[in-house]
Amino acid sequence: MTKVWLHGYHGRMGQEILHLLEEDSHLKFLGGSSRNQLILPGREPNGYSPNDLVESLGETDVIIDFSNIAGNQAIFKACKTHKLEPKAFVIGTTGLDRGARNAWKDLCREAGHRLLFAPNTSLGVLLTMKMSQQMAQVLSPMGFDIEIIESHHRNKVDSPSGTAMFLADRICDKVDLKVSTHRTGKREANELGVFALRGGSVFGEHEVRFMGDHEELAISHRALSRTLFAKGALLLAKWIQKQKPGQHYGLPDVDLNDLA
Amino acid sequence: MTKVWLHGYHGRMGQEILHLLEEDSHLKFLGGSSRNQLILPGREPNGYSPNDLVESLGETDVIIDFSNIAGNQAIFKACKTHKLEPKAFVIGTTGLDRGARNAWKDLCREAGHRLLFAPNTSLGVLLTMKMSQQMAQVLSPMGFDIEIIESHHRNKVDSPSGTAMFLADRICDKVDLKVSTHRTGKREANELGVFALRGGSVFGEHEVRFMGDHEELAISHRALSRTLFAKGALLLAKWIQKQKPGQHYGLPDVDLNDLA
Amino acid sequence: MTKVWLHGYHGRMGQEILHLLEEDSHLKFLGGSSRNQLILPGREPNGYSPNDLVESLGETDVIIDFSNIAGNQAIFKACKTHKLEPKAFVIGTTGLDRGARNAWKDLCREAGHRLLFAPNTSLGVLLTMKMSQQMAQVLSPMGFDIEIIESHHRNKVDSPSGTAMFLADRICDKVDLKVSTHRTGKREANELGVFALRGGSVFGEHEVRFMGDHEELAISHRALSRTLFAKGALLLAKWIQKQKPGQHYGLPDVDLNDLA
Amino acid sequence: MTKVWLHGYHGRMGQEILHLLEEDSHLKFLGGSSRNQLILPGREPNGYSPNDLVESLGETDVIIDFSNIAGNQAIFKACKTHKLEPKAFVIGTTGLDRGARNAWKDLCREAGHRLLFAPNTSLGVLLTMKMSQQMAQVLSPMGFDIEIIESHHRNKVDSPSGTAMFLADRICDKVDLKVSTHRTGKREANELGVFALRGGSVFGEHEVRFMGDHEELAISHRALSRTLFAKGALLLAKWIQKQKPGQHYGLPDVDLNDLA
Repeated sequence: MTKVWLHGYHGRMGQEILHLLEEDSHLKFLGGSSRNQLILPGREPNGYSPNDLVESLGETDVIIDFSNIAGNQAIFKACKTHKLEPKAFVIGTTGLDRGARNAWKDLCREAGHRLLFAPNTSLGVLLTMKMSQQMAQVLSPMGFDIEIIESHHRNKVDSPSGTAMFLADRICDKVDLKVSTHRTGKREANELGVFALRGGSVFGEHEVRFMGDHEELAISHRALSRTLFAKGALLLAKWIQKQKPGQHYGLPDVDLNDLA
Repeated sequence: MTKVWLHGYHGRMGQEILHLLEEDSHLKFLGGSSRNQLILPGREPNGYSPNDLVESLGETDVIIDFSNIAGNQAIFKACKTHKLEPKAFVIGTTGLDRGARNAWKDLCREAGHRLLFAPNTSLGVLLTMKMSQQMAQVLSPMGFDIEIIESHHRNKVDSPSGTAMFLADRICDKVDLKVSTHRTGKREANELGVFALRGGSVFGEHEVRFMGDHEELAISHRALSRTLFAKGALLLAKWIQKQKPGQHYGLPDVDLNDLA
Repeated sequence: MTKVWLHGYHGRMGQEILHLLEEDSHLKFLGGSSRNQLILPGREPNGYSPNDLVESLGETDVIIDFSNIAGNQAIFKACKTHKLEPKAFVIGTTGLDRGARNAWKDLCREAGHRLLFAPNTSLGVLLTMKMSQQMAQVLSPMGFDIEIIESHHRNKVDSPSGTAMFLADRICDKVDLKVSTHRTGKREANELGVFALRGGSVFGEHEVRFMGDHEELAISHRALSRTLFAKGALLLAKWIQKQKPGQHYGLPDVDLNDLA
Repeated sequence: MTKVWLHGYHGRMGQEILHLLEEDSHLKFLGGSSRNQLILPGREPNGYSPNDLVESLGETDVIIDFSNIAGNQAIFKACKTHKLEPKAFVIGTTGLDRGARNAWKDLCREAGHRLLFAPNTSLGVLLTMKMSQQMAQVLSPMGFDIEIIESHHRNKVDSPSGTAMFLADRICDKVDLKVSTHRTGKREANELGVFALRGGSVFGEHEVRFMGDHEELAISHRALSRTLFAKGALLLAKWIQKQKPGQHYGLPDVDLNDLA
């Protein structure tokens, strides 16, 4: 039985994960934390000192973090300062900069942690990314153009979505293109354009189009509820535990056949 | 038998129309002109003076103009200076500014011409526009957001396409929205976003999406060849001949039931 | 304030409508009924005799019926036998046969009721149907083929959906085509094919495609939740009240501009 | 310089391939044949005896066969009876039965030929198939349903298309589903449904949908012209030449990274 700590407990993703943890026979909810509170089963939620957090984290196998950047740094400091035993991490926090990511990587190596950066925990998005990479590697050298369209609800603040940029960047890891998010004129030959529709209550749709002279291909993903991100996070929590200590991983490292 | 004059004869649209005219039992090709040449059946194409043009235009019933802006002005001047008998015009030239359009409108009233401004002569685009207007009038007041996506081949210079802007503007004639072609941040409540994909050899695709809290609708159009624009131009040539002299029209004025 | 009676109270649609009625300042929930129970605000739900039903129905302005066929007949008998004052009806019950519909029509004329047969109460489906009719009337005579695709969740029993058949039949009211639901060989010239995908948890998607030699058009509708059917039912309840007594209507009779 | 023989020379695919061969610096057109004629560069097309065919085939490196079943058998007999030197074959002929395929396989082993069965030579369809297999292997065990939709022009005789059945069968090679081409009732749990739209002048569109409880994925392919099948056939001709003698292959054996 794997013991799970949930940072970002009070967020929507935290609550979804909590719900799924209760029904999972291989994972056990040990406790959770957010900016201001420590949550331990059977106790009242309460304000906590860093010491409380560190003590509770000690018994944890996997820490799933869906907090914001500030929350992620708090976890980082607790792990570093108090020299926690090696843990496995699923970092779902989005928007970490290169410095923050490098600090985590150093900590992994020093302390023997296992860490997965997972800015999107949907299994379907992971699959879309992996298929897009393969398709781009075949089609881009043959002269196909690649464009990405995403749609989200009318109130989404960031544009394009983190997921669209994730897909675009992972494709550019494999083929020599540069991402263009706000094209106003003619298409450049080496561009990968990203377009962000906003309206209604769309949970999240992403489509990668491969446009050739004689044929077109597309791969698309549509989220129907937030549950899929929580489900994927638990699949990834199980996966990261089985990886090598002292190593950090990104979503492209996840072999889909190891998830089932 | 309606006698047709083709201005912009040497362009791709001119040639498509010429081809269809040869098979049309109600329309007869009288002659054509382009920047430098006058084309009369049975004669060698040749350079021409304005007088030659004017003489030939005299017998024409309908003038279809798919030239550029300069070409359109040349036709305008020939009609105005030489006080041509009332004609019917289908103006397929794109990019005419308000001044040029107003000059044409004045000329219509003075000389008794009939004129249709038709920046897109596809029957399907016309239908898409009319349906979009109706849908927008019902759905926009109920809180639906509207976005337009278009795709064209990788070499298209203008972005968004004239057709996408035409669809957007005609929707905004009916509901109180403003067109946003290069949104970079959060969606404003009263925006209609337009997005322009470019790649491969796409002839032209346009989709209008209506995104609500509980349902989504979309109407889409895909061109498979240039022929449809030529076919539509001839339908519109027949239509404009039947309208009132001294009047000018836009595509929203065309009643689809009068085309068949 | 319009007083509403809800038959089929315990069904999913009944409960959705109840929820919306509580927030609607122009409509007031008077009471509801299902096969076995009478529900009156402030009283315990209870078994009831036809007399109880009839008494309560007396004060009602609009009866919305989302029960099954048996439930619909019970309402019919109560209205007929007890000679209820003229009411307005929205009949959302699906699968009524011609005989049942004709009996209702006779009752309307005799008793001065207003009745709307509304096998689908989504505003978006209504709009899709009306647009499809207009598009079919222009495009079918020009040689376009029409096909309908629908998708629903994996457990849906009927195939194609009632909504797909409704769209197909209403198109065939306007153009001379016959519906083909299980084509196995070559397409016949006068066929309108209907195709029913099943999988996952899809709420309901319908697309009408118009396929021509040089261009294609499509209109599509996607339901994101059941709420839209309840919202539409209340719009239709307000509409039917304003129509002529003694008359029965179908969805094609609803002028969308009268709904807003 | 690889010498290519083209069987099915007079068909539309044969002519497309001929056109591309003329522009390919690595492949040289040696000659072609059809039911009744032998075509040798610089000579008048003419009726031919089997001996003529055999003599010309002797120098050939790769035989591309886009003839029908009768034509394919003629090639088979010529190769077998006259004990041709080992060749490479791309068999684009569709509809070969198991017996015909097994006879070819035996001949390959005996005579040291290399053979690729390629009922669809589009690179994009090949990619769609490979991606669909991978997606099915991850998603089907997690409870996703799979459905395939294809569209073709109104005159297509077979339904569903050979390509749709190819995609369905190759997916069923990897996951335990059975293909259902004419579902009329409720979906069975282990079904993969195939749906065939017909209309207009569609060259060929195929979409594989993966429908889950919380997310949906799709991969789609659209052919814009017949050229892509000819282009792919030449890529496959180069590929089969590099494989082991005495072996037969199917499209799933082709590693996409070896094509570029």
